[in-house]
Amino acid sequence: MEIRLDELARIVGGEISGDPSVVITGVAGIREARPGDITFLADPRYGRYLESTAASAVIAPRDTARTSKPLIICENPYLSFIKAVEYFFPDRNSYPRSVHHSAIVADSARIGKGVAIGACTIIEEDVEIGDNSLVLAGTFVGRRTSIGSNCLIYPNVTIREETRIGNRVIIHSGAVIGSDGFGFVRDGEIYRKIPQVGNVVIEDDVEVGANVTIDRATTGTTYIGRGTKIDNLVQIGHNVVVRDNCIIVAQVGIGGSTEIGAGATIAGQAGIIGHVKIGEGSVVAAQAGVVGDVAPGAMVSGYPARNHKQAKKIYASLQKLPDLLKRVAELAERVARLERGRRS
Amino acid sequence: MEIRLDELARIVGGEISGDPSVVITGVAGIREARPGDITFLADPRYGRYLESTAASAVIAPRDTARTSKPLIICENPYLSFIKAVEYFFPDRNSYPRSVHHSAIVADSARIGKGVAIGACTIIEEDVEIGDNSLVLAGTFVGRRTSIGSNCLIYPNVTIREETRIGNRVIIHSGAVIGSDGFGFVRDGEIYRKIPQVGNVVIEDDVEVGANVTIDRATTGTTYIGRGTKIDNLVQIGHNVVVRDNCIIVAQVGIGGSTEIGAGATIAGQAGIIGHVKIGEGSVVAAQAGVVGDVAPGAMVSGYPARNHKQAKKIYASLQKLPDLLKRVAELAERVARLERGRRS
Amino acid sequence: MEIRLDELARIVGGEISGDPSVVITGVAGIREARPGDITFLADPRYGRYLESTAASAVIAPRDTARTSKPLIICENPYLSFIKAVEYFFPDRNSYPRSVHHSAIVADSARIGKGVAIGACTIIEEDVEIGDNSLVLAGTFVGRRTSIGSNCLIYPNVTIREETRIGNRVIIHSGAVIGSDGFGFVRDGEIYRKIPQVGNVVIEDDVEVGANVTIDRATTGTTYIGRGTKIDNLVQIGHNVVVRDNCIIVAQVGIGGSTEIGAGATIAGQAGIIGHVKIGEGSVVAAQAGVVGDVAPGAMVSGYPARNHKQAKKIYASLQKLPDLLKRVAELAERVARLERGRRS
Repeated sequence: MEIRLDELARIVGGEISGDPSVVITGVAGIREARPGDITFLADPRYGRYLESTAASAVIAPRDTARTSKPLIICENPYLSFIKAVEYFFPDRNSYPRSVHHSAIVADSARIGKGVAIGACTIIEEDVEIGDNSLVLAGTFVGRRTSIGSNCLIYPNVTIREETRIGNRVIIHSGAVIGSDGFGFVRDGEIYRKIPQVGNVVIEDDVEVGANVTIDRATTGTTYIGRGTKIDNLVQIGHNVVVRDNCIIVAQVGIGGSTEIGAGATIAGQAGIIGHVKIGEGSVVAAQAGVVGDVAPGAMVSGYPARNHKQAKKIYASLQKLPDLLKRVAELAERVARLERGRRS
Repeated sequence: MEIRLDELARIVGGEISGDPSVVITGVAGIREARPGDITFLADPRYGRYLESTAASAVIAPRDTARTSKPLIICENPYLSFIKAVEYFFPDRNSYPRSVHHSAIVADSARIGKGVAIGACTIIEEDVEIGDNSLVLAGTFVGRRTSIGSNCLIYPNVTIREETRIGNRVIIHSGAVIGSDGFGFVRDGEIYRKIPQVGNVVIEDDVEVGANVTIDRATTGTTYIGRGTKIDNLVQIGHNVVVRDNCIIVAQVGIGGSTEIGAGATIAGQAGIIGHVKIGEGSVVAAQAGVVGDVAPGAMVSGYPARNHKQAKKIYASLQKLPDLLKRVAELAERVARLERGRRS
Repeated sequence: MEIRLDELARIVGGEISGDPSVVITGVAGIREARPGDITFLADPRYGRYLESTAASAVIAPRDTARTSKPLIICENPYLSFIKAVEYFFPDRNSYPRSVHHSAIVADSARIGKGVAIGACTIIEEDVEIGDNSLVLAGTFVGRRTSIGSNCLIYPNVTIREETRIGNRVIIHSGAVIGSDGFGFVRDGEIYRKIPQVGNVVIEDDVEVGANVTIDRATTGTTYIGRGTKIDNLVQIGHNVVVRDNCIIVAQVGIGGSTEIGAGATIAGQAGIIGHVKIGEGSVVAAQAGVVGDVAPGAMVSGYPARNHKQAKKIYASLQKLPDLLKRVAELAERVARLERGRRS
């Protein structure tokens, strides 16, 4: 499939800057794009990628800096880019908007208009699913759970009872929402289970990765704020609160009752202990081990996690540690020699 | 839902100490409880939580220290607490005790009394399921596997062939029990698979978290002892032996053939190499990297994991390392100056 | 089940060296074997295990060093060992080669000869499955995906649309192949999803562990090379390229667009940042945090990952750091004393 840039500009709604005859053969993110692709720039702050991207053209906002790249200039580059994606991949997510004959849907479930329920999907009593949502094959939705409109629940997801999911939420395969929190109390040698009777609330525009686990609260709610994006294999403990627009990268673990402030980024494989506060807009580096609160806007790294600048200094110093040991031993000898000299 | 403390005491079986007119509106663990909740104290050792909990009242054993909190004093606080949970959440886990018409159950399977088999659940040949167990929707149980009585297997669990599961075991969604161990042998450039023909045995009262993986043994048995509790996304390798009453927190990885002693605690994201012994009652701290045996009762942390007190000292010292480098360089200069002075 | 070694030699095809009357009761890998087991040695380089294994006999190649162990000497020890496994476990993987009546298979799917499709399995439009492959219960295979011949897809796997899987591939339960890459672009406060329109390609003889996640590419392909073996709970990001015959141990995370060279070993819980190159034949130690390229043949460990020899020295030196701080403070005092002495 190929199209001239000026033709594509007409389809996605925008004006050409640069060569209108460039041929476009695909779409991609600005860092992954290859020659022939068109990409987009949502935020002029990332204008530096304009020159380095391998894309043949970029959909960009009005105030974009001069560049040698052919551009499609438009009001909302993201929406125009999505139109370009639809042009190249016309049948993505085109599912029959109906309940598959093999699905098991409780009579008391309320299913909106334009909803697709996949094969062998199980919808229990008193579930509510909003208009135009897709709940694909093999997914389980427990009692009294509500799913908003325009959601996309991929195959083989498990959503347990009483979960509340907003609109335009995407949940990838294998994710488990609302499993019991890990709550026990010691009774002599053995552990007694604390019943986990709270729930999980996921706000609008959240994305939950494949094989993620989000535990229900002991009591009350485990909460994922609007617009937060969660990568694969992340563990979110009971009673955790993640505020809006956070980025949580793959294999992160967040201990029970911890709160992640809005706009925070938790990088891959980081672990955060329970019962702490991670400040708004802060960054926890990959593999960091956070054992206390993190201030708003701070960046922390290492184990135990510290201010990132300090941690970087420490980890750079480490390289010199074996040599330092030798040097100090040698210095001690020289000092001893001086002391002996003085006494003699 | 609300109830006076004295009325609740009558229902759960106990005597009031303190204000009998307190109104209770819910239940919670002692650390998660909020005003209005009732909680419980199973072990007098945790009496310190009595004053700090936000709960409005506590179900406590006879020998509990004096406190300003209203108490329900009883023989077995845990059982009384469970009665309180049942009062507030009367229909938890109330599933029709029957085989759902969409379940696929082999003729040779022996299903006990009062068992619930969920929708689209698959029970293969020669499976045995004990009385009053729940095997919920979409779960797969492979050939010759046995599940004891009063178990709760959540939706979308996979239990492969020949697994043996005891009584009162809880397995959360997405868990995979009995997948092949990771066993290969190098043959020139390529790796040849070693067939994994052992099994998994899970004893009574174990809980297995969501998306946990427990590999079957190469030969013999991967073993999870009675009362052990495993959090989400934990990996347990082939031929691992976990003894009784261990706590294994989320995202821990345990290498093949390692043995975890009774009553050990392995905190979140810790990794333990294969073929080592973790002593009885020991504690492995979060994110620790264990590369050798751990003595009974020891606590280890860091990478590579060391005695926790020593590791704490090291990690505290790290902070001073960049400064130390400067100080040693400066000292070296001063010593050189002294040496020059002496020679002159 | 038991058999004399000479009888077994006849069945698996080989000649006896040592006592032909040894009784064999099972099979196992060379490290896991117990008395009574027969094991195998594929590569004479691992001859050191010959003496330490507890196995009662070993299937070994012609050029194996002298040993006190009874051997079955043969051309291809691995193939002979597989015959021994089949002798002791005759009905492993014997599934009816048909489509289960509860499976949902699209009319447009092309299913080869001798294929088993399990209960409640879903095969979408235009899927292709090669001869003699097993796709077991509850698995989902999305549109236009192709699976080669002699594959073994365990229950409750999710394979999304347009995935290409080679021959003799094994995928364990709960694995998710082709979930969306984690690609977003910041637009002011919020994150916009970059549609993930690439796919996943898995070459011949790959094994994918339980609850692994392999994301589809943003555009182009996430690639797993021939013969690579992936353990449980591993995360492979979008556009990652893993070359042939790699070993990726449990809970490893590999960031987007990173390339792993042929024959590399990534040990458990290691994390590799996106957009780097891990050289051919290199080794990344357990829990390492790799933040840059790794040279071919190198071994790295620690956080941030460094040359393993250097890292080992550093981690050994760490032990001496608290003491070093004291010694330097003491040295500084002695130097100050010397300086005072000189001035006086």
